[in-house]
Amino acid sequence: MQKQLGAEALGTFWLVFGGCGSAVLAAGVPELGIGFVGVSMAFGLTVLTMAYAVGGISGGHFNPAVTVGLTVAGRFPGAKVIPYIIAQLVGAIAAATILYIIASGKTGADLGSFASNGYGSASPDGYSMLSGLIVEIVLTAFFLIVILGTTHGRAPVGFAPLAIGLALTLIHLISIPVTNTSVNPARSTSQALFGGGTAIMQLWLFWVAPMIGAAIGALIWKAVGEND
Amino acid sequence: MQKQLGAEALGTFWLVFGGCGSAVLAAGVPELGIGFVGVSMAFGLTVLTMAYAVGGISGGHFNPAVTVGLTVAGRFPGAKVIPYIIAQLVGAIAAATILYIIASGKTGADLGSFASNGYGSASPDGYSMLSGLIVEIVLTAFFLIVILGTTHGRAPVGFAPLAIGLALTLIHLISIPVTNTSVNPARSTSQALFGGGTAIMQLWLFWVAPMIGAAIGALIWKAVGEND
Amino acid sequence: MQKQLGAEALGTFWLVFGGCGSAVLAAGVPELGIGFVGVSMAFGLTVLTMAYAVGGISGGHFNPAVTVGLTVAGRFPGAKVIPYIIAQLVGAIAAATILYIIASGKTGADLGSFASNGYGSASPDGYSMLSGLIVEIVLTAFFLIVILGTTHGRAPVGFAPLAIGLALTLIHLISIPVTNTSVNPARSTSQALFGGGTAIMQLWLFWVAPMIGAAIGALIWKAVGEND
Amino acid sequence: MQKQLGAEALGTFWLVFGGCGSAVLAAGVPELGIGFVGVSMAFGLTVLTMAYAVGGISGGHFNPAVTVGLTVAGRFPGAKVIPYIIAQLVGAIAAATILYIIASGKTGADLGSFASNGYGSASPDGYSMLSGLIVEIVLTAFFLIVILGTTHGRAPVGFAPLAIGLALTLIHLISIPVTNTSVNPARSTSQALFGGGTAIMQLWLFWVAPMIGAAIGALIWKAVGEND
Repeated sequence: MQKQLGAEALGTFWLVFGGCGSAVLAAGVPELGIGFVGVSMAFGLTVLTMAYAVGGISGGHFNPAVTVGLTVAGRFPGAKVIPYIIAQLVGAIAAATILYIIASGKTGADLGSFASNGYGSASPDGYSMLSGLIVEIVLTAFFLIVILGTTHGRAPVGFAPLAIGLALTLIHLISIPVTNTSVNPARSTSQALFGGGTAIMQLWLFWVAPMIGAAIGALIWKAVGEND
Repeated sequence: MQKQLGAEALGTFWLVFGGCGSAVLAAGVPELGIGFVGVSMAFGLTVLTMAYAVGGISGGHFNPAVTVGLTVAGRFPGAKVIPYIIAQLVGAIAAATILYIIASGKTGADLGSFASNGYGSASPDGYSMLSGLIVEIVLTAFFLIVILGTTHGRAPVGFAPLAIGLALTLIHLISIPVTNTSVNPARSTSQALFGGGTAIMQLWLFWVAPMIGAAIGALIWKAVGEND
Repeated sequence: MQKQLGAEALGTFWLVFGGCGSAVLAAGVPELGIGFVGVSMAFGLTVLTMAYAVGGISGGHFNPAVTVGLTVAGRFPGAKVIPYIIAQLVGAIAAATILYIIASGKTGADLGSFASNGYGSASPDGYSMLSGLIVEIVLTAFFLIVILGTTHGRAPVGFAPLAIGLALTLIHLISIPVTNTSVNPARSTSQALFGGGTAIMQLWLFWVAPMIGAAIGALIWKAVGEND
Repeated sequence: MQKQLGAEALGTFWLVFGGCGSAVLAAGVPELGIGFVGVSMAFGLTVLTMAYAVGGISGGHFNPAVTVGLTVAGRFPGAKVIPYIIAQLVGAIAAATILYIIASGKTGADLGSFASNGYGSASPDGYSMLSGLIVEIVLTAFFLIVILGTTHGRAPVGFAPLAIGLALTLIHLISIPVTNTSVNPARSTSQALFGGGTAIMQLWLFWVAPMIGAAIGALIWKAVGEND
């Protein structure tokens, strides 16, 4: 299991370093910046690339909600859930720390709330807590449906990392303006540690909603996707 | 067939929630918004991801015009057409409803015509009804050609969802300014219900043109693509 | 051969309708327009989608320079070159005609030089004829290298349409500002017919340079890529 | 080995011509330019396309840091390292030369520092040398992890060029504002030769950091990814 935990830590490091890194360093550069499209691509490609690279070792969750959802669906042993989540948090926080050092090296750096998730006054485009709650639940549910469907024996072999990574891109294309997009409590936690007050106070939603969404997604899949 | 209808409802939910959701929530955010490129990517990725996830269950139509076109091409039983279309409409309208609730949670929200399709005064960039009619027919025809070709025994295995999803991205890259891009009556209907007057009055075109286009595409494919 | 010519006409129709269509209809819409990134994606996706759909029928050239380059490389029979090129021209011109009708349906439409290729005063960003000549030769040469390499027995099965389509996206990302990107005489011809004076006068370069480039690419491949 | 060196030269030519070419020619065009998103896509697609085309010949490194990292990981013979690096430099410099000629053909061309990499005053968005050093090390390390993981026997066959190319896109989405993104000493050298004073003086970092990063990535992979 040592190698599995190493793979999860690496993958979640990459997700945070690449996804949040693109948001912090490159999204808002005047004229040439990558905007929400580029950030969405970056998040998806972190998962796509590392799922191809280390998915064969750990399954490539990189996300506590995914680990829990797979367990609810009966695809992952409950005994490994806590170790996996700890490894994911370690990787995510390490990435956030290094990213923070890099980002601080800019002339006149002002890191604001880092790439924290938020709602209400902390929502990028002013959406309410209810909107944030719903969107995170729905998107995590479908993220799990895509994961469970594409890794099912019925799906074509080899394409799961592609579909799952691009599902994460899609999820960001929809919801960055609402909550800055979490669907991943490890990602949210790593940013809140550096993003300060509001981000910490709102962090509960980005654990609760993705976990509920993941469980719902797993149950929907079991109803629709499993053979009888 | 229960599971097939469930898969169609889920897939069409995702198409509307993801595609129209990205348009409503993220396209026009100042500076960082995803624009038509991001919306085009989002629509395509909804189909790509769910076709990999549940395509093996229902075939992954998520679109009444696709269902009809496949039937014209002799690839889908006529008896299932109506149930499939109803499932697609249910999924699409459910998605639009939830999206409407989320979008309404924005400070000073003004949802205008939602992500409705339109022509003439309701065309995003001022195109006539004739332009809209032609572009929807041509694009749906080629959408069907791509679907029929990539799911034919001659095509490489496993790549159909990729090609079909990216075909929908391409279709949006071309035609959002003309009609806001339909090629899918379920998508159009779900938005018109919330988009109001003009959208309802113009809805006929987004049933008629995609259906005609799908039938034409199926016939072209039978002439060019089928073995003798 | 009837079906092969039909497939080439369809594919080249799609290339022009999708690629040039995105440029004419969607690139320059204020605020939300797709820009050169979107046009680059569109051109690539036309080839990706139709190469998966009908590549098994005709080989999926959709481009006279590709047909000639494959012949130089010994992969395509010389006797079929002229019929293929005619089919490609028919498809391209049909697409341009329909696109012209659609584009004319916009309030206050001004189609300028359509999506014509050009150099000097007709270069989108003011590049000389020499720059245009070099860039078209180099890019077509590498387009052929990618085509010949990915369809070689040594390459993984099924990925050629993906790599070839994305190569065309890449080619456009580089060179739209220089010549509006041709690498395809059929595409250039179809637009010049509607783009008028300068486009017609400069059309020679977009036959000569891609053909030279394709031949060079084929020879480079034979030196580097073929087994002894 | 002649053909292997030819393939490496071709691939690195394409990487520099496509990646740096898109940056120099197309990134900053007003209104329609491709920005950092387009440049990121271009770099990734150069590797994706040529890895599919000639990866079966040379392994498709196109980058001295990749060659060294693979050697550290025990996947590439040390005796071939120097010839590979020379071939890569030849390809890169040839591409830069032709790109320079094309770019000079623009009315009022001002090539500034070309597409050179830099830090401090030469960083695109004003990041320090330390930030540059860290980001190049971390990104090259993960580039190697993705390369080693996706070409391992455990990974699905045929997807490595896709994942590796998109990893390079991701790397650029993160770090263009910091150093203009190197992770490739051959790419950096080719641009510094035309970019002048500061670029030459700072070139050391874009040899040292990618090489250190590649070695670290190889060691991480051996710890986490290799079977015991």
